[in-house]
Amino acid sequence: VNSLCFTALAGLPEVQPGDDLAALLANALQREDLTPADNDVLVVCQKIVSKAEGRYVRLAGIEPSARARELATQCGKDARLVELVLHESSDIVRVAPNVLIARHRRGWVVANAGIDQSNLPNADGERALLLPADPDASAALLRERLQRQFGARIAVLICDSFGRPWRLGVCGVCIGCSGLAALHDLRGEADRGGRALQVTQIAVADEIAAAATLIAGEAAEGRPAILVRGVPPQYFHAPRPAADLLRPTDQDLFR
Amino acid sequence: VNSLCFTALAGLPEVQPGDDLAALLANALQREDLTPADNDVLVVCQKIVSKAEGRYVRLAGIEPSARARELATQCGKDARLVELVLHESSDIVRVAPNVLIARHRRGWVVANAGIDQSNLPNADGERALLLPADPDASAALLRERLQRQFGARIAVLICDSFGRPWRLGVCGVCIGCSGLAALHDLRGEADRGGRALQVTQIAVADEIAAAATLIAGEAAEGRPAILVRGVPPQYFHAPRPAADLLRPTDQDLFR
Repeated sequence: VNSLCFTALAGLPEVQPGDDLAALLANALQREDLTPADNDVLVVCQKIVSKAEGRYVRLAGIEPSARARELATQCGKDARLVELVLHESSDIVRVAPNVLIARHRRGWVVANAGIDQSNLPNADGERALLLPADPDASAALLRERLQRQFGARIAVLICDSFGRPWRLGVCGVCIGCSGLAALHDLRGEADRGGRALQVTQIAVADEIAAAATLIAGEAAEGRPAILVRGVPPQYFHAPRPAADLLRPTDQDLFR
Repeated sequence: VNSLCFTALAGLPEVQPGDDLAALLANALQREDLTPADNDVLVVCQKIVSKAEGRYVRLAGIEPSARARELATQCGKDARLVELVLHESSDIVRVAPNVLIARHRRGWVVANAGIDQSNLPNADGERALLLPADPDASAALLRERLQRQFGARIAVLICDSFGRPWRLGVCGVCIGCSGLAALHDLRGEADRGGRALQVTQIAVADEIAAAATLIAGEAAEGRPAILVRGVPPQYFHAPRPAADLLRPTDQDLFR
C-alpha cells in the first residue's frame, strides 16, 4: 500500500541540558509500543535537541554592539537578541519592522537566525535557545544510538519551522538528517512521455518534516518527536545530510 | 492517537480535458475501500485538475513578443514558453540562466509561472499545461461533489511543487483549499511558560501538501490523489482558502 503515517509520541518529559535524548526517545517509543523497524524515520523537533545540548544563552550576560543596537532600532527587537543573531550569522539578509532575517553560519536563511524564545522554562531570567551546533551530526548520533537499541536501520531527521518569503505562516523544514536522502535527485529519469523531467530534485526531508511539524504542535501540548512509517524505500538508498538542502550562496538570487 | 496518514490512490486513469474529475476521484476512492469520513482531506495534484479543466496551450500557436525573446535569451528557455509565462504573470521576479521566476497573476511566486511540460501526452505537437484558472474554486467544486456523494464533511486541497529561494529541491505546497484553514492563526495562544508564541501562523495546508506530494511521486508511476486522515480537528473550524497563504506584495521583502 502507498501509505505514509506520522505518529507523534506522547509522554516525552521536559528536556533538560545534558539529558540523554536518545534514551528519552527510546523510552517514549517503547511506552507506545512503537518499536522502530527498517525504513522508519524518527523526526525530532529542533527545540528538544537544542535543550538536551544545553544551547541556552542568558540574555542578561549579553552586551549589544553598536551594530546590534542599530539593527534593533530598525526591527524593534531586543538588542541583546539581535547581538546573538549577529553572532550566529554570516549575513543579515533583511531587516524591517518586526523582521530580522539572517543567514545562519551553517547556511539556513531564517528569521532571527533560528533563535527561539518560546516554550523555554524561565528558571534563570530571560533566555534564548540557539539551534543545535551541528544538526546533521546530532541526527547521526541519535540514529546510531537508536539503531543499536532497536536493531533496525532507521533514519533520523531534525526539524524546525521556517517562514517563507512569499507565503505566510511557518512550515516545517529539515535541518538535520541521517540515513535518508534529504535531497533526492531525479536527473536522468524520464516522464511517462519519455521527456526529461522538469523537476529534477525533490526536497524529501523537508516534505517529511512539514507534515511531522503539523502534528508536533506549536503550543502548550507539544509532542516534539514523530515516528514516520511508509517513506518510499528508494529514499534510503543514497543518504544525504540536510546540509545538501542548502542552495549554494553563489546560486542565491535573493540575497 | 496522534496519527496522520496519507494514502495515495492507485488506478486513476490518464485525465482528459472535460473529464468529470470528481467522479474519477470518487471511483478511485471506492475501488480502494477508502470511503471519506468527516475531517478527511483529499489532496489532488494540480496537474490532473489542469488537465480536466483543459488548461493546455499548443506552443505552435504562440508568437513570442520582443520582451519574451529577450527574456528567453537570458534564461535559455523556449521563447514561446516565455511568452506564456508573461501572459500568466503580473511580474517577472528573477531571470538567470535556466531560471525564470514569475509572480503569477494569482499571486504565487514560482518558476515559469507554474507552467508544466512534464508528463503531457504528446498528441498534438508540443504543449504546455497552465495552472488551474482558480484552484480555490476548483477545490470547492470538487469538495461539494465529493461531500454530496459520500455524505461526509471533508476538505479538498490542490497541490503543486514549488522551488524555494534558499533551499534546493522542490517541495509540495497548496494552491487551492476548501474546507480547511490553509493558514491557522495562533495569535493569542500562549506557550507553556505563559509567554506569547513567537510563531503566530502555521501554513497548515502547505504542511499537508508537502507530505502528500512525497507519495504522489513525480515520475512515470504518479499517483496524483492522496487521502489524508488524522488532520487535527481544530484546523477544520474556520476554513480559509489557499489564497490566504500568499504574502501581500506590500510585505514582500524579496521582489
